[in-house]
Amino acid sequence: MPSSRFTIPFPAASTRVRIAREALAHLGRETRRTTGATRVALVTDTHVGPLYAAAACRALARAGIETHLVTVPAGERSKRIERLAGLWRRFDRAPITRADAVVALGGGVVGDLAGFAAATWLRGVPWVGVPTSLLAMVDSAIGGKTGIDLASGKNLVGAFHQPALVIVDPAVLATLPARHRRAGLAEVVKMGFACDAALFRFCERHAAALAAGRPAALAAAITRSLRVKTRVVTRDERDRGPRSALNFGHTLAHAYETARGYRGVLHGEAVAVGMCAAARLSVRIAGLDPGAWRRLERLLATLGLPRRLDRVRATALEHAMRHDKKRGTRDTRWVLTPRMGHASVPQPITTRLVRATLLDVGARI
Amino acid sequence: MPSSRFTIPFPAASTRVRIAREALAHLGRETRRTTGATRVALVTDTHVGPLYAAAACRALARAGIETHLVTVPAGERSKRIERLAGLWRRFDRAPITRADAVVALGGGVVGDLAGFAAATWLRGVPWVGVPTSLLAMVDSAIGGKTGIDLASGKNLVGAFHQPALVIVDPAVLATLPARHRRAGLAEVVKMGFACDAALFRFCERHAAALAAGRPAALAAAITRSLRVKTRVVTRDERDRGPRSALNFGHTLAHAYETARGYRGVLHGEAVAVGMCAAARLSVRIAGLDPGAWRRLERLLATLGLPRRLDRVRATALEHAMRHDKKRGTRDTRWVLTPRMGHASVPQPITTRLVRATLLDVGARI
Repeated sequence: MPSSRFTIPFPAASTRVRIAREALAHLGRETRRTTGATRVALVTDTHVGPLYAAAACRALARAGIETHLVTVPAGERSKRIERLAGLWRRFDRAPITRADAVVALGGGVVGDLAGFAAATWLRGVPWVGVPTSLLAMVDSAIGGKTGIDLASGKNLVGAFHQPALVIVDPAVLATLPARHRRAGLAEVVKMGFACDAALFRFCERHAAALAAGRPAALAAAITRSLRVKTRVVTRDERDRGPRSALNFGHTLAHAYETARGYRGVLHGEAVAVGMCAAARLSVRIAGLDPGAWRRLERLLATLGLPRRLDRVRATALEHAMRHDKKRGTRDTRWVLTPRMGHASVPQPITTRLVRATLLDVGARI
Repeated sequence: MPSSRFTIPFPAASTRVRIAREALAHLGRETRRTTGATRVALVTDTHVGPLYAAAACRALARAGIETHLVTVPAGERSKRIERLAGLWRRFDRAPITRADAVVALGGGVVGDLAGFAAATWLRGVPWVGVPTSLLAMVDSAIGGKTGIDLASGKNLVGAFHQPALVIVDPAVLATLPARHRRAGLAEVVKMGFACDAALFRFCERHAAALAAGRPAALAAAITRSLRVKTRVVTRDERDRGPRSALNFGHTLAHAYETARGYRGVLHGEAVAVGMCAAARLSVRIAGLDPGAWRRLERLLATLGLPRRLDRVRATALEHAMRHDKKRGTRDTRWVLTPRMGHASVPQPITTRLVRATLLDVGARI
């Protein structure tokens, strides 16, 4: 399996990325080399910790790094103020100084929480991402978005804080449940359909291998996705313009997750349905070739991803979107794709068109 | 009285500064012009709110800005997680979007708390500082350091987040207690002694007028201090080098405040004593002319500021410094001044020399 290294330049700091099987074994050496840290807080969760924390600690110890392990409960509910305050207290006791670092070993929740704790500890200490879910590997681990949820909404509080280093070890996907692996593929498809047609065609060509979780196919998909995401986020670190392309499918996805109370539907599954809705809307009003929309539906089907909403009313989705919209702009805005690989800036969509689109993808009346 | 405007360029964003009597009346127009906000959360405290919140709200309303007033208890104890979480909830209810802004009306505590809440709300919304204490006007309002305290230490959690606009209205100093006004002058003296000899000489020439709180002298001191601080922080936004000059006097000041439990001694008073200690140490080991040290002591005396520790043991100070030192570097480091207007990078000082210096400035054994 090929390994890959590259560096993502940002104005204030750059992120080194290393993608390789067994890269976890080099976590200590790479952390020492990139950050200079001799002491780290290793943040993980109750699912990932029992599987990989020991290996991570050994790798850190081999590089002469003193490790303080902090384990939070697995699941979105750990992205909350109390857990954040708990991490700060642990950093204080260690103590983690500006010469030290935070290592996030886990999926998106652990990365968002630990990254935000690192962003705010002593006004910012370096952090290292070790994503263990496919979704985190291809998407959330790079780009520097960190944060926590409030009771009233996800990711309301946070910071942009680029990790100094991201270690992607596809070998850890062996323990990722198949359903979570498929959900991660939804974000790969998203990056293809909204930002890079070549990546979309790669997914089409290797759909069966990706669906089956073949390591070589997954590793290639990860590397390609990270390169696409790198291109997008380096153009727009603070999410004021082109980076919004990465929200393709997410207007509906967030509303769907909220309406379902984050139960029974994974983020990637919600994104899959959200992309079908956004692509249909793009056919209706943005000139997208209907053939491109059908290819998207077909690919998602091959990957075992949902294309229709499950047990949710249109009114509940509309309510959730109205709440969500207040955060950024004052209208319900959707990222559309005039053609495959190209996304528009988020556009305000009339309530009538939104309703029609929701019904298209199976919302109950 | 002369008014002054300037813009501080930072890599990611710049800060507009307006210094003028009655500038508070232009808060709305300036906020609208700088941030485009049509809705703000106005954060103030129980001391300042009753005096100036109504005027601020009127000024904002005149510019067509909807204002959500949030009042926190006056005092350092408001720089805590619970207050921060309370601000986030208020921002959520308003709601404050990325197109809106946060206005901090108050002293250093309000600026640090509200600025940090703005830094982390939706990964960063614009904020406007309206400092009402002399200390905040000359020092903490610009430079972008924001944050809160933990039970174990001050400013452990925070972010660098430059205000978009700072409105300095010296007229509000009329209601500042004389003791607080004098304490603010300590930071002006600090900027002179450590960074700019001309500012120090200005303070010497106008010491009587400054001590008496004459408006023209204070306004001139504010403008000069802000220009010096601007020069320092634009060279080193993230506090990795030259900005440490601004910590002259602060190694002992922080320990003194901690040892006294933040009771009975104002930050500026602690800085005054801390500068005397650092200047003595500079005479001993950094080649500072003893005449410069004596001028510092004389100026502080004329300004009515303390030069000796009050009721604190050397061991308590040493304990506090050992705790503080863990945050940044692993040694007790002091900023020294080889000559007036020039500071060294923080230098490790032996425990023996630290003890001698503490006794010099009146620590009990």
